[in-house]
Amino acid sequence: MSRAADFKPFGVDISLDDGTMTDPDTHRIVKTSTMHGYYLDETALERLIEEHGDPVHYEVFEPKIPEQDGHVRTCISKLYPGRVGDECFFTKGHYHTKLHTAETYLCISGEGLMLMKTRDGECAWEPFRPGRMVYAPPCWAHRSVNTGDAPLVSFCNYPADAGHNYGDIVDEGFPMRVFIRDGEVVIE
Amino acid sequence: MSRAADFKPFGVDISLDDGTMTDPDTHRIVKTSTMHGYYLDETALERLIEEHGDPVHYEVFEPKIPEQDGHVRTCISKLYPGRVGDECFFTKGHYHTKLHTAETYLCISGEGLMLMKTRDGECAWEPFRPGRMVYAPPCWAHRSVNTGDAPLVSFCNYPADAGHNYGDIVDEGFPMRVFIRDGEVVIE
Repeated sequence: MSRAADFKPFGVDISLDDGTMTDPDTHRIVKTSTMHGYYLDETALERLIEEHGDPVHYEVFEPKIPEQDGHVRTCISKLYPGRVGDECFFTKGHYHTKLHTAETYLCISGEGLMLMKTRDGECAWEPFRPGRMVYAPPCWAHRSVNTGDAPLVSFCNYPADAGHNYGDIVDEGFPMRVFIRDGEVVIE
Repeated sequence: MSRAADFKPFGVDISLDDGTMTDPDTHRIVKTSTMHGYYLDETALERLIEEHGDPVHYEVFEPKIPEQDGHVRTCISKLYPGRVGDECFFTKGHYHTKLHTAETYLCISGEGLMLMKTRDGECAWEPFRPGRMVYAPPCWAHRSVNTGDAPLVSFCNYPADAGHNYGDIVDEGFPMRVFIRDGEVVIE
């Protein structure tokens, strides 16, 4: 048991206003230029990158937790507001490599949607608003969408050995897209 | 895979002000009278129950998530402020039945401490304040303590098959106690 207990307790501060994590072990910045092929309007994406100097699309803050069974990995996901044409900014989305693992998302600030799907073609979505906890069950791929004007900040938790499979989403795409049209959120 | 995907996505609303969960599947209310034997001053505990009509000590709100490997169970823990003599209110505390499993606590409001210990006698504590995420690693028993004047609200996540072992804490006790003396937090 001593070896298992070798990983020591720790704490980390997260701003409940803007989602910034103080001294994260990993701070991943995803720029808009890495989102080629994801949005419906590729020309609008190129124009956005050109006109706004490749803005940050989303950020992920993580403390260092072993990717081992029994641990729980946790992160802050901060998805910026914006549109590619009239399509709302979203994260790449992922299945877990260990497919049969879940993930919880607690929305801390902002508004949007979680899109979810299974390999069998089943789809679902849940709203994000401050205080909303969304459960992405085992086997459900998930992608966050920002429908608001402020960053969408979520606190995420998942089994530490889950792993991330982004590639299958690149291949399969997501069967739902979210737009703002005439000031209204439209899910297609 | 279809069977695994049978558990459907859902969302639940949590107040980021007071921790109340809308329509939880389980709402556990722990009264002060169930805390006999936990505090140093048993007489003060009895007086508190008598004078204040067995006040609520803490509450736990939970959505229904299967207690199975791959799922992540999540809850809101709301620990009321108060003292037993000069000892700060705390939760019973637990190991996980599946000992080698972790738990994350995101403090949403209030202030306090997380006390942690291993069976080997190692001890640790971390502060709780709004936005503070505290990591209770595998094999570490953990107990929340409220050192403030408002409820201490935490959003907790753990592997769904972890289970709770409260009995060993009853037998072993916790090697640290927290008091308010002359307006100061004292950890002994």
